[in-house]
Amino acid sequence: IQNSFRVEYDTFGELKVPTDKYYGAQTVRSTMNFKIGGPTERMPIPVIKAFGILKRAAAEVNQDYGLDPKIASAIMKAADEVAEGKLNDHFPLVVWQTGSGTQTNMNVNEVISNRAIEMLGGELGSKKPVHPNDHVNKSQSSNDTFPTAMHIAAAMEVNEVLLPGLQKLHDALSTKSKEFAQVIKIGRTHTQDAVPLTLGQEFSGYVQQVQYAMARIKAAMPRIYELAAGGTAVGTGLNTRIGFAEKVAAKVASLTGLPFVTAPNKFEALAAHDALVELSGAMNTTACSLMKIANDIRFLGSGPRSGLGELILPENEPGSSIMPGKVNPTQCEAMTMVAAQVMGNHVAVTVGGSNGHFELNVFKPMMIKNVLHSARLLGDASVSFTENCVVGIQANTERINKLMNESLMLVTALNPHIGYDKAAKIAKTAHKKGSNLKETAIELGYLTAEQFDEWVKPKDMLGPK
Amino acid sequence: IQNSFRVEYDTFGELKVPTDKYYGAQTVRSTMNFKIGGPTERMPIPVIKAFGILKRAAAEVNQDYGLDPKIASAIMKAADEVAEGKLNDHFPLVVWQTGSGTQTNMNVNEVISNRAIEMLGGELGSKKPVHPNDHVNKSQSSNDTFPTAMHIAAAMEVNEVLLPGLQKLHDALSTKSKEFAQVIKIGRTHTQDAVPLTLGQEFSGYVQQVQYAMARIKAAMPRIYELAAGGTAVGTGLNTRIGFAEKVAAKVASLTGLPFVTAPNKFEALAAHDALVELSGAMNTTACSLMKIANDIRFLGSGPRSGLGELILPENEPGSSIMPGKVNPTQCEAMTMVAAQVMGNHVAVTVGGSNGHFELNVFKPMMIKNVLHSARLLGDASVSFTENCVVGIQANTERINKLMNESLMLVTALNPHIGYDKAAKIAKTAHKKGSNLKETAIELGYLTAEQFDEWVKPKDMLGPK
Amino acid sequence: IQNSFRVEYDTFGELKVPTDKYYGAQTVRSTMNFKIGGPTERMPIPVIKAFGILKRAAAEVNQDYGLDPKIASAIMKAADEVAEGKLNDHFPLVVWQTGSGTQTNMNVNEVISNRAIEMLGGELGSKKPVHPNDHVNKSQSSNDTFPTAMHIAAAMEVNEVLLPGLQKLHDALSTKSKEFAQVIKIGRTHTQDAVPLTLGQEFSGYVQQVQYAMARIKAAMPRIYELAAGGTAVGTGLNTRIGFAEKVAAKVASLTGLPFVTAPNKFEALAAHDALVELSGAMNTTACSLMKIANDIRFLGSGPRSGLGELILPENEPGSSIMPGKVNPTQCEAMTMVAAQVMGNHVAVTVGGSNGHFELNVFKPMMIKNVLHSARLLGDASVSFTENCVVGIQANTERINKLMNESLMLVTALNPHIGYDKAAKIAKTAHKKGSNLKETAIELGYLTAEQFDEWVKPKDMLGPK
Amino acid sequence: IQNSFRVEYDTFGELKVPTDKYYGAQTVRSTMNFKIGGPTERMPIPVIKAFGILKRAAAEVNQDYGLDPKIASAIMKAADEVAEGKLNDHFPLVVWQTGSGTQTNMNVNEVISNRAIEMLGGELGSKKPVHPNDHVNKSQSSNDTFPTAMHIAAAMEVNEVLLPGLQKLHDALSTKSKEFAQVIKIGRTHTQDAVPLTLGQEFSGYVQQVQYAMARIKAAMPRIYELAAGGTAVGTGLNTRIGFAEKVAAKVASLTGLPFVTAPNKFEALAAHDALVELSGAMNTTACSLMKIANDIRFLGSGPRSGLGELILPENEPGSSIMPGKVNPTQCEAMTMVAAQVMGNHVAVTVGGSNGHFELNVFKPMMIKNVLHSARLLGDASVSFTENCVVGIQANTERINKLMNESLMLVTALNPHIGYDKAAKIAKTAHKKGSNLKETAIELGYLTAEQFDEWVKPKDMLGPK
Repeated sequence: IQNSFRVEYDTFGELKVPTDKYYGAQTVRSTMNFKIGGPTERMPIPVIKAFGILKRAAAEVNQDYGLDPKIASAIMKAADEVAEGKLNDHFPLVVWQTGSGTQTNMNVNEVISNRAIEMLGGELGSKKPVHPNDHVNKSQSSNDTFPTAMHIAAAMEVNEVLLPGLQKLHDALSTKSKEFAQVIKIGRTHTQDAVPLTLGQEFSGYVQQVQYAMARIKAAMPRIYELAAGGTAVGTGLNTRIGFAEKVAAKVASLTGLPFVTAPNKFEALAAHDALVELSGAMNTTACSLMKIANDIRFLGSGPRSGLGELILPENEPGSSIMPGKVNPTQCEAMTMVAAQVMGNHVAVTVGGSNGHFELNVFKPMMIKNVLHSARLLGDASVSFTENCVVGIQANTERINKLMNESLMLVTALNPHIGYDKAAKIAKTAHKKGSNLKETAIELGYLTAEQFDEWVKPKDMLGPK
Repeated sequence: IQNSFRVEYDTFGELKVPTDKYYGAQTVRSTMNFKIGGPTERMPIPVIKAFGILKRAAAEVNQDYGLDPKIASAIMKAADEVAEGKLNDHFPLVVWQTGSGTQTNMNVNEVISNRAIEMLGGELGSKKPVHPNDHVNKSQSSNDTFPTAMHIAAAMEVNEVLLPGLQKLHDALSTKSKEFAQVIKIGRTHTQDAVPLTLGQEFSGYVQQVQYAMARIKAAMPRIYELAAGGTAVGTGLNTRIGFAEKVAAKVASLTGLPFVTAPNKFEALAAHDALVELSGAMNTTACSLMKIANDIRFLGSGPRSGLGELILPENEPGSSIMPGKVNPTQCEAMTMVAAQVMGNHVAVTVGGSNGHFELNVFKPMMIKNVLHSARLLGDASVSFTENCVVGIQANTERINKLMNESLMLVTALNPHIGYDKAAKIAKTAHKKGSNLKETAIELGYLTAEQFDEWVKPKDMLGPK
Repeated sequence: IQNSFRVEYDTFGELKVPTDKYYGAQTVRSTMNFKIGGPTERMPIPVIKAFGILKRAAAEVNQDYGLDPKIASAIMKAADEVAEGKLNDHFPLVVWQTGSGTQTNMNVNEVISNRAIEMLGGELGSKKPVHPNDHVNKSQSSNDTFPTAMHIAAAMEVNEVLLPGLQKLHDALSTKSKEFAQVIKIGRTHTQDAVPLTLGQEFSGYVQQVQYAMARIKAAMPRIYELAAGGTAVGTGLNTRIGFAEKVAAKVASLTGLPFVTAPNKFEALAAHDALVELSGAMNTTACSLMKIANDIRFLGSGPRSGLGELILPENEPGSSIMPGKVNPTQCEAMTMVAAQVMGNHVAVTVGGSNGHFELNVFKPMMIKNVLHSARLLGDASVSFTENCVVGIQANTERINKLMNESLMLVTALNPHIGYDKAAKIAKTAHKKGSNLKETAIELGYLTAEQFDEWVKPKDMLGPK
Repeated sequence: IQNSFRVEYDTFGELKVPTDKYYGAQTVRSTMNFKIGGPTERMPIPVIKAFGILKRAAAEVNQDYGLDPKIASAIMKAADEVAEGKLNDHFPLVVWQTGSGTQTNMNVNEVISNRAIEMLGGELGSKKPVHPNDHVNKSQSSNDTFPTAMHIAAAMEVNEVLLPGLQKLHDALSTKSKEFAQVIKIGRTHTQDAVPLTLGQEFSGYVQQVQYAMARIKAAMPRIYELAAGGTAVGTGLNTRIGFAEKVAAKVASLTGLPFVTAPNKFEALAAHDALVELSGAMNTTACSLMKIANDIRFLGSGPRSGLGELILPENEPGSSIMPGKVNPTQCEAMTMVAAQVMGNHVAVTVGGSNGHFELNVFKPMMIKNVLHSARLLGDASVSFTENCVVGIQANTERINKLMNESLMLVTALNPHIGYDKAAKIAKTAHKKGSNLKETAIELGYLTAEQFDEWVKPKDMLGPK
């Protein structure tokens, strides 16, 4: 397919680089050495975009420290294109490469350098006038740039996808909670019938869960907003200038509108990625919350005849042609699958996070891949679940009332009036005969229909007195 | 509480050993250095018993190779007492110690040596005439004895607790499957109503799951039956005699009645514990199976009025005093909690198993603790679940029939007779009106009551034609 | 062993209760129905103590709402004994019971009731004058008391064991970081030689990790400080009084000195335990941090001759009698085993947390067991690791200097003076010959010994310029 | 970009289908309802190919049972194209859809139907003469076809990628083990110096691990070779013909050359995916093995000056321009990242596998995605690791000998000759002074140089006597 190449060299010999690509020899070398997993395993685009932002910021700061403004400016323009996703096709490397992400950093350096060279009328691959290492990577090392890009990418995905998705879900659940405020229904504990609550109360639990999910994720962000840039190879900042770290963080903050700061301890920032494990943990908790909610909704919406049937879920696809009314809770299924995936991703992140050694953790690409995967899936699934399920949920009030009225546990309300023993007798008899409480109570001669109606009021069982 | 001590010495100085304990200085030293977690964290008793078996076997073989028969015999007797659990109180060390389990090996050596000394009329702590290292540990190292004890313990727990428990559950489910062979019920897919099957068929799926669970566990055992003994410190077998490894394995096999053999590669046997990760994986799969079964049973048994209500679960505890008929599925809850624990244990075992270095994996005590925990919990929970739940499950045939007859999907059976369109019309009308298929079909004038009864037979929907 | 019983009854018939125990029929019933795992699997003592605190608080509040002060006072005294751990032997139930912890709640009610009866001169088992349900459990349900006890127990273990342990470790590492501030050593990235840093800088990364670990755990606490008490059976607060929830939380806060408040949404507090998943997640991150630190320390301390040998670890046990200088990093091993366990526990908590249904999560005992296990192990292991390892770590400065001076990467410093090509030539030649940089540089005629000493100063490579 | 559409209809209304795509309305509907995760989240191609095989087999069998041969033949041809990967662009659906994979089954039905229609000269979207449901899906349901495709895909990936990759790695390690048979080196336990072994022995442990990895995976396959086809909607086989299940399995076996059989219990085959959890468990164990091996190799190859330096790893990328000899163990890093990912995937599979309900597990797409991901990554990484690392590993015999000779534990060999006390004195003195054993021994006057050389022979320490 590709039949036009330019020849480039690295210290190992010559390499053919596709003519229409901005990347160079080190990128090609990596594609040869790491044939693991295919195109779906490429470094996530948010990491590439984050690198664009970082390289732009670094170029600006380097210009302050003396980098030729013409070069700096070209780097900035090229980096902006990377940040905007215009050059996505030029990043062929997979996640399963060097654990420091060095090759992706070089891929970025090569692409920006060549694109900048092109803008300045130079020859691709010539490294002139914009050198991938000397200029694009100036004052940087893979060891500090990759973790910086990890944090930028994670922060952006959380703010652009995850939190908005959760907020949308939260708001829709909250609306439903209010809509269902008057729908009194039977409660279920141990999956068994219990005392009543309103459907609005039930949904308020979900609202609270999602609200806390957002709080948890936000609580993890301060440490994500810390950037490793300026630590260079081992955290000391060798080959950078005093102030470089702070200035780069400020630029990145300005470019993204997010409160990035320089990491207070660069040794930790290179050698450990606890902040990502922490964020992943917050998403793992979120996954638990969403699995609970989606499970409840599919069970409450089960039926149409042989399930619980309290909720009517929106029908989004042609149901079975023969079984009208069978609505598969497909959005719940997508959501619970996402939840399981996030739990798995979290273990991968945990294992990677625990295995750093000395001055560098070398599970970086794998860790960020999983964190971004979880953030995107949870965010997208929350939106899909909200739009295609939650907003369209209706209470099947007829069914809800029927179950309420047939319930035996309302007998509790009779205790103060006829005593525990008689109340129990009513319940036991009704259970045995399959009859309802009211009929049974009257039949047993313990009270009148009027008394029953006066004393047994689910409405009065919804809160403390 | 303890106020009588004897003084022993190690190279660090003197130590007070309780007079009534057989252990010695190294054990006491460990209790001082590892105050982690308290008594519940002690080395699991099955490991101690396994050590008893191993030390007895080693003494026998050492006698063949020249160990003084008087000493060998005393060691064997003392080791037998350890194997029988008679000296459990003499093993105070926690799991959270040296990762090779060295201190527990020394604890065993000290206890056996002192008990043997006692039998021979010597003085506790004198190391004469039975020395903990020179005699009890002869031809052995912690590095090969601990993994040997791990495998013996795991194999015994699997054979004595786990497999019998699963077999019991299997048999009870199989009996139920046969008992319920004629009970036709509605199927549920996506938690929604679907075409019918028998309750017996539904249970046959559970039977198959448990049968495969046993097959999976058995498939992992060949590698558990391989013993590291004879590898000594690094796997080479330095300081043992040619044939020692094979003879010890044969003795252990003879003592336990289990097909132990010597590990073909001792380097692997010390440095990796993949066999335990594998066994843990088989238990993890078993946990998935049991969680599915227990979940189904509690949902099918939910109610009494507002759930699915197809199964009547045995009532084992006083239910709510006010709600007769509310039977909490407590055995299902214990089982699903066990399943979650086993999944967690499996991750701990996996992390430990992946982190060995060079000639020795030093996550040994943690790994075996989790493997034994999972085996015991799954075995015990299977028995408890069987005895207190499965054997007492009854089909609520009235409820099952009602749901069956109300179901809309039986309309499928009319397609060949009146065509898809009319069948769909019936179903849709019935769903809308909340009426049943037969009434609706007659009302719509598509067929007679007799025709309906002849054509719609759930019995004919239970298999291929 | 036990041969003295009193006979008690529940609705299923008579039961023999050991005469010397305060528990009653429901507890005995549970021991018969849940023979799973044995004594090590008992409900953790911190849960029992937390129940003591809760029952005391509830009795006080109930007295405000009209409970007979004589009864209330007796309950309070008995509850205090439970809270103080004086009655631990009276709680035989295992974790693997009802998933709501109902049986442990009843165990507590029975013990407090009987102890209170005893104090008041009544007869054990008579339920007079202090009834386990009507008085001890007044205004409560298992469904809200158990999660309340979970949160109290978790909060206390975190504050009494986990955070103090981490603080101790933090302080010791911080001291070492300062002590080693001037020790310049070679850095290692990808486990390979890299540019230098100080040993103090290296340790400062660990200090930062532990500091953040504490911050993460503290960040999870606000949601742990929310108590479910007052929600009763399904979260509505049926059968409690307005204000009960708030007053109980205030009492618990006062009794514990911790900032407990009533949960803003009781439905969430009963049906989900996201707060525990969150706390477990913070401990999982902590486990990653501690594993990294312990791994580094054991590798840096490896040797004495064939390892990295930069650290001298304290010798805590008799090392091999034949190999002086071989110090096994046993504290590191205990710590890393603990870390693996915490990661596994976290998955168990996650699975349990995701599987709640409707108004109640029924994985409660399993979840709190694992959370408490992780907190205790991390806290204890931190103390043990600190006292028996960290405080005694010495820098092997001779070895550190040797490695530093032999290192090839110092050649970087020559670039500005003799140019990249010559510097590379020096490094390559030295690598090939196995010689050092200085000799090689002089031999190649590129500079003088004086120049080398002036230009190559590791001290100048420790930060940005 | 896409501006040419045809209009199709489903029961919800009209939909625009791109003119150049074979898929139809249901596929388009799904793309609208499940906007989760983007293109990298598409249903894995091996599943699509497996569906091609299954649909081909089903068409053949359906022809036996009376399906019009013209139609059957066209389906077979179109299905072959799917199986060969020629139509990959026509499968846009993501994993995060219905948990039964229904929409992917319909995607396949639509693509095959339209391609077959095209072959027969019909109009795309007309469903004539080849109907997606009536013909392509004949005798099938999503509920049995999707699990069938899961098993076919898993089996093929295991046989085509995973096992060949592991075999290649095994063979390379085995070759190295033989090559290094005579290289005696110091052993390391607890990461500390220990008694010697050969480098060949060390590698033999890795060989054993990989050999067992293959055995474990193969042991899981019998249950993967069982196919659900013929179970249709709930496992009963409604709407199929007797013999259909067996014949389809036989055809699939014939088409793939793999020993597929029909599942003995279709209820289990639809409602549980324990077989995939089991296979994932075998891959999880494999991940542990490979992580151990890769970790050892990178540590043994660490340096060049300040690490262990016993292995010389091949240099695959330009090392640091300034530090010749610094070879980053990038293949080890890719491998260990893969291992961490596989451990995470395993948890996702476990959570999904444990959450099936009633007659259907609805975590199918997520489960197979993770299983295929693990198989591919492990297989590819094994090949990459073998070709780019293992085959090029060299023993640094100079370094190995140096460490061996400097080692203090060889003193063990002197015990029989000069007694334990003098041997210990030598070792302690040498350790203190930093001198070697031989010099120290002579200096202390315990033996002659000749005696030392005769008595201290590492060669004699490599096995039992």
